[in-house]
Amino acid sequence: MRRGGAVAFALLCAAAPAAPTGGAGTERTVEGARAVLDAQVVAWNRGDLEGFMAGYWNSPDLVFQSGATVTRGWPATIARYRKRYQSEGREMGRLRFDEIDVQPLGPDAALARGRWHLVMKDGSEPNGLFTLILRRFSDGWKIVHDHTSAAP
Amino acid sequence: MRRGGAVAFALLCAAAPAAPTGGAGTERTVEGARAVLDAQVVAWNRGDLEGFMAGYWNSPDLVFQSGATVTRGWPATIARYRKRYQSEGREMGRLRFDEIDVQPLGPDAALARGRWHLVMKDGSEPNGLFTLILRRFSDGWKIVHDHTSAAP
Repeated sequence: MRRGGAVAFALLCAAAPAAPTGGAGTERTVEGARAVLDAQVVAWNRGDLEGFMAGYWNSPDLVFQSGATVTRGWPATIARYRKRYQSEGREMGRLRFDEIDVQPLGPDAALARGRWHLVMKDGSEPNGLFTLILRRFSDGWKIVHDHTSAAP
Repeated sequence: MRRGGAVAFALLCAAAPAAPTGGAGTERTVEGARAVLDAQVVAWNRGDLEGFMAGYWNSPDLVFQSGATVTRGWPATIARYRKRYQSEGREMGRLRFDEIDVQPLGPDAALARGRWHLVMKDGSEPNGLFTLILRRFSDGWKIVHDHTSAAP
């Protein structure tokens, strides 16, 4: 019985989703991360920046990197978006994400990468790439780190 | 015995380093990731691009993002570096990484972010930010995803 128990324990631990590379844990992680991104696009396209920002970790430790500028914390990050997309003469445009690829990194962490694409009223189409790190919290998956770049 | 075994199993699983947030596992992850970056700087500054590239996962699934361009695979990534830093009229300059921050994301994954800074012979100092995802393999920590941006 003891040996049987040890073998059962070993099998159970081997099955634990410590670093998921397949199966139900991976699927849930991919779905959780994709749901955050999908909700962000819906919020953006109704002009709801607060709703878009609900996908980000509401913490002073949120990090947003772009160009050579690091923005730290949720308040500074929404302020950056407001300045670029809601201030005088600016518009949010219509957003979509393409080529989204989610890679689970552990039971509570995932990488999401892909392309962002905006269509503005003047016909211009700013676009570029993003790298997101998401963590799973008690209230769901949130972006804790964002590195965004744009076509030159 | 069966109930005792179940409790012991629950305790053992609870203690497993599923998502290290402190302790020896975190320290080893931070040291492992930092060692990759330190070795990259040393290799770069002796003009050894192959040595620099040893920090990257030698796989067709390596991803390097910059601007709006995705480079896939180790061969294409070293080719990109060769073109930018070793082709006619180009130089590698002197590299340093600043403000390096390593965040463990699981037992075998880490985020490393920070600033890259080059000093060129003409006095120019290209610089910007990086986001790296590292995974632990049997032969050590390797960068599996790189998002790099530059000051405009």
